Amino acid sequence: MSEKKKTQMTKGKPKKPQNTKKNKAEPKKVYKPTVTANTKGKKPRPKKKKLPEKPSVRVAFLGGLNEIGKNLTVFECQDDIVIIDSGMAFPDGDMLGVDLVIPDYTYLEENRDKIRGVVITHGHEDHIGGIPYLLAKVNVPIYGTPLTIGLIENKLREHSLSAPPTLIKKNAGEHIKLGCFDIELIHVNHSIPDAVAVAMHTPAGVLVHTGDFKIDYTPMQGEPTDLNRFAALGSEGVLALFAESTNAERPGYTPTEAKINDSFDKLFTTARNKRIIIATFASNISRIQQIINCAHRYGRKLAFSGRSMINYMKVAQELGYVKVPENMIIDIDRLKGYPPQQIVLATTGSQGEPMSALSRMAYSDHRKVSVGAGDFIIISAKPIPGNERTVGNVVDELLKRGCDVVYESMYEVHVSGHACQEELKLIHALVKPKYFVPVHGEQKMLQKHRALAMSMGMDSKNIYIGDIGRKVEINEYTGIKELEPVTAGKVFVDGLGVGDVGSIVLRDRKHLGQDGLIIIVASLDVYDGHVISGPDIVSRGFVYVRESGDLMDDIKSLALDILDDCSRRNIHEWGVIKNMIKDDIAKLIVRQTGRSPMILPILMEV
Amino acid sequence: MSEKKKTQMTKGKPKKPQNTKKNKAEPKKVYKPTVTANTKGKKPRPKKKKLPEKPSVRVAFLGGLNEIGKNLTVFECQDDIVIIDSGMAFPDGDMLGVDLVIPDYTYLEENRDKIRGVVITHGHEDHIGGIPYLLAKVNVPIYGTPLTIGLIENKLREHSLSAPPTLIKKNAGEHIKLGCFDIELIHVNHSIPDAVAVAMHTPAGVLVHTGDFKIDYTPMQGEPTDLNRFAALGSEGVLALFAESTNAERPGYTPTEAKINDSFDKLFTTARNKRIIIATFASNISRIQQIINCAHRYGRKLAFSGRSMINYMKVAQELGYVKVPENMIIDIDRLKGYPPQQIVLATTGSQGEPMSALSRMAYSDHRKVSVGAGDFIIISAKPIPGNERTVGNVVDELLKRGCDVVYESMYEVHVSGHACQEELKLIHALVKPKYFVPVHGEQKMLQKHRALAMSMGMDSKNIYIGDIGRKVEINEYTGIKELEPVTAGKVFVDGLGVGDVGSIVLRDRKHLGQDGLIIIVASLDVYDGHVISGPDIVSRGFVYVRESGDLMDDIKSLALDILDDCSRRNIHEWGVIKNMIKDDIAKLIVRQTGRSPMILPILMEV
Repeated sequence: MSEKKKTQMTKGKPKKPQNTKKNKAEPKKVYKPTVTANTKGKKPRPKKKKLPEKPSVRVAFLGGLNEIGKNLTVFECQDDIVIIDSGMAFPDGDMLGVDLVIPDYTYLEENRDKIRGVVITHGHEDHIGGIPYLLAKVNVPIYGTPLTIGLIENKLREHSLSAPPTLIKKNAGEHIKLGCFDIELIHVNHSIPDAVAVAMHTPAGVLVHTGDFKIDYTPMQGEPTDLNRFAALGSEGVLALFAESTNAERPGYTPTEAKINDSFDKLFTTARNKRIIIATFASNISRIQQIINCAHRYGRKLAFSGRSMINYMKVAQELGYVKVPENMIIDIDRLKGYPPQQIVLATTGSQGEPMSALSRMAYSDHRKVSVGAGDFIIISAKPIPGNERTVGNVVDELLKRGCDVVYESMYEVHVSGHACQEELKLIHALVKPKYFVPVHGEQKMLQKHRALAMSMGMDSKNIYIGDIGRKVEINEYTGIKELEPVTAGKVFVDGLGVGDVGSIVLRDRKHLGQDGLIIIVASLDVYDGHVISGPDIVSRGFVYVRESGDLMDDIKSLALDILDDCSRRNIHEWGVIKNMIKDDIAKLIVRQTGRSPMILPILMEV
Repeated sequence: MSEKKKTQMTKGKPKKPQNTKKNKAEPKKVYKPTVTANTKGKKPRPKKKKLPEKPSVRVAFLGGLNEIGKNLTVFECQDDIVIIDSGMAFPDGDMLGVDLVIPDYTYLEENRDKIRGVVITHGHEDHIGGIPYLLAKVNVPIYGTPLTIGLIENKLREHSLSAPPTLIKKNAGEHIKLGCFDIELIHVNHSIPDAVAVAMHTPAGVLVHTGDFKIDYTPMQGEPTDLNRFAALGSEGVLALFAESTNAERPGYTPTEAKINDSFDKLFTTARNKRIIIATFASNISRIQQIINCAHRYGRKLAFSGRSMINYMKVAQELGYVKVPENMIIDIDRLKGYPPQQIVLATTGSQGEPMSALSRMAYSDHRKVSVGAGDFIIISAKPIPGNERTVGNVVDELLKRGCDVVYESMYEVHVSGHACQEELKLIHALVKPKYFVPVHGEQKMLQKHRALAMSMGMDSKNIYIGDIGRKVEINEYTGIKELEPVTAGKVFVDGLGVGDVGSIVLRDRKHLGQDGLIIIVASLDVYDGHVISGPDIVSRGFVYVRESGDLMDDIKSLALDILDDCSRRNIHEWGVIKNMIKDDIAKLIVRQTGRSPMILPILMEV
């Protein structure tokens, strides 16, 4: 009741009430900073060992473990909760029709009053994509660097929220006080500018969360990862490190983004008088800066294709994260006004996504660009595991049209945004954490990352591999202990629906998609159940009906036999009749075709 | 009419009629060998240039170009046709519910009387998988090496053919006379024993088709690829080379299979007292021989899991292609009688296929094997492009269960069966063909292979990149000329149905799989069209109905409004009424949910 009242109060009221204790969206009202040990609310208990008393930090994992995507980690100390990242994931192949996947926010709804804020490490979808859905559940303040917040603002414009969001810009190096947490943002390199790691100074000790990062000594934009700050934290003492594991399987170092520059230079020379089309991730703003620079050097104009790329560029340009020479960028509609050798077209679709701009070009389905022998196409990205086939298909189609196509197996036109093993080791060496939790990765990556830490001398009992829904307590003296699991899981977003597609709907979709369906519909007399009309057979996705007349006739006459038989034998429970039809017709069909379509008997009472 | 009569005659008659000119399944009755130039049936025409007259060879491509799989190439000279390989392909992700894909055999049916035989290069599915379906259309003799024929026999047991197949064993080095073709089988290395390339001595010149091959100087079984024979053919003069392109993108050489031996040795030592499970391709008989050898050296018994592996092993053992020490192989049911350190289990599922033995183990769904911390699992295969995710998922599940898992990114436990660039160059250098047609590969591989040939000095006009359905004429003096295309394409096999699933069925399956369906069913009065019963709403794969009552009510009342309205306005054409229902309800649903399920209005007349 009071819950409902509160929601109603909040709805449509931009000004937040100041006098309720349960106020959950108040960034300015900070709790007393409590960086030093704080035992408020803890009663001394009889101890077995003579360990100094220290509060614990609790960590719940709602996403990003045993998966790539929807990163969301919940940190709790005393009565305060801080969330790091709020991402979404792309659906697996078996999540038919699902647009995107977000974490289950139940645990956050249950603890809404403790949440002091969400800190976002950078502006990629697997870190910000869940924000609109999270805010629909709990209206908490969101903190991030200027570009990150700019991208979030842009994203939120497409969603209607019941309350205006509270978005707060903080630069790398700045601190955020959230309850007993003192949050420090640390500059890191990644495939998008303005990415940060997070150091959380808490009464329980210092926690470091790397976010996504790599170490680039010659980055395209800004400074290398702030190794000195990691080193200083390590020297002061870090309770626990949470480090990303995306490339934990890859030995060595991720090459510098500067390397791409040389490749682009060679390719722009090779392309000569052809139009150059470069596909890359829309969010890879550093890469796009390189394309801009190279296009400028070779006297070419630049146009963009693909909605997400245009969006990212808009935000990045407004906030000054890309530097564009004057009069260089042209609208895609103006392409025809220039000869091919004066054009670079930057486009989405580097993953072969069916509806993307590059795919449309490959399959002659792009409204504004048609490609052919005059095009020199560079795919400046690596296929995400699972996308190899779709990317290969797009390359093949482009080649068939006579385009020159440069893809990763041929030249070095892409570097990863994530740290490889030697970079991970460097961070471990600098931070010297007491406890370590590998995050952001599938099981194999998490285990590889654990092995890496152990190879550097860490004790396996100080390393914790978690899973979605797991919650642990970390204490400097008593170690890592698993607590009761929390509610967690995958929530599917399909169109406007959030969470209304579940396992039953997906199972039906899979069945329908694999084998199609057969509908048997008949009208029965309300009194004696005799067939008044039908049965009619309707099928979709099963066989080409015009060439399968015999089979359809067989199904029809079998259904009629069953209905007549039921009527004669006074069987009137429709559940029973429907099951008889389902079973017998399934047998008939599997015998004749070897297939198992969904069979839907529909009976109407007249 | 005569066509029908013939089919009836052939059906159920093992003894073939000797007196009909159209007899199509007679391997013994060979045409006069005509290895030298033969101008039979050719009238001298006035020539512009003084070129010596020579017959041409014609080549039609029914599969294996711009795709991986369903290899089938048709060679024609004078009135004789020889087919090389008859494979199948696995369905792409968008071929929902399709079990396998075969070529369209129309062109072969049209020319059944000219077909002298099918020569199979080796026993992999992409070379033999189409044979049962081809034989159902045209009963032609099949030639291959003993293992290849053994595997085909095994496969044909699962199919009921109207006429007994004619399967003829020939060893590498032997010749087969097929009309004016003198076919020579040449030993090559591949990931299955008894693989051959084919040299076709024809009146038009010598054609060399490599089949699938690599060059292994230290193969596990038998001799290295018969380079001397390729060299001799090259010295004598080869009109055209048809060479596989699977690895044309990969620089260097494919490592020798012997390399695996060292890796296995290391891993067997590492595994110590754990049970060893090795997943590999069922058909990779050399790899299985290595597993047998290694298990023997380490005093372990060997069991097999997975139907296809058991099948392949049965044939290979019967024909002596694997050497197994006595009492070494045990049935999977006897696993429990041995301690883990005395066991090796060889299994299918190296591609993460959902129903395979390894997947079942990973997801605790295998009836006989459950895995855990006592298991050391080696995945001795590389994911075929597109399977990376499913393989990764299986690895993750195994790791979660505490298994040790060795997959390719960690050790060298797999080598390819296909020639890399330097091996391809060697074959080109030896064979010195006048014309070159890259085969077996996607567009990007074919183009890479062309570039490779050009880098060795070949003129691009002597190289032909084909496509399915293309037909060319090759003549020593006049070059490669495209002829009228022939009927060709993909035929889908789904259950027992061959070709009854087409683009409309697939489109419906995709729609149903993505968005589910809504059925609106109503009984209408036969005279005035007023609603007697319903409308009832049935949905599947759309939303979880119990939580979407309002939406279902809205749909129902909208449908009722439309039906009432039509009845009032005397609209009785059901097509019109159905379209109105479809359109209006689609609009309602997209507005409320952002989705587009299939909408099926069913009206019954009472």
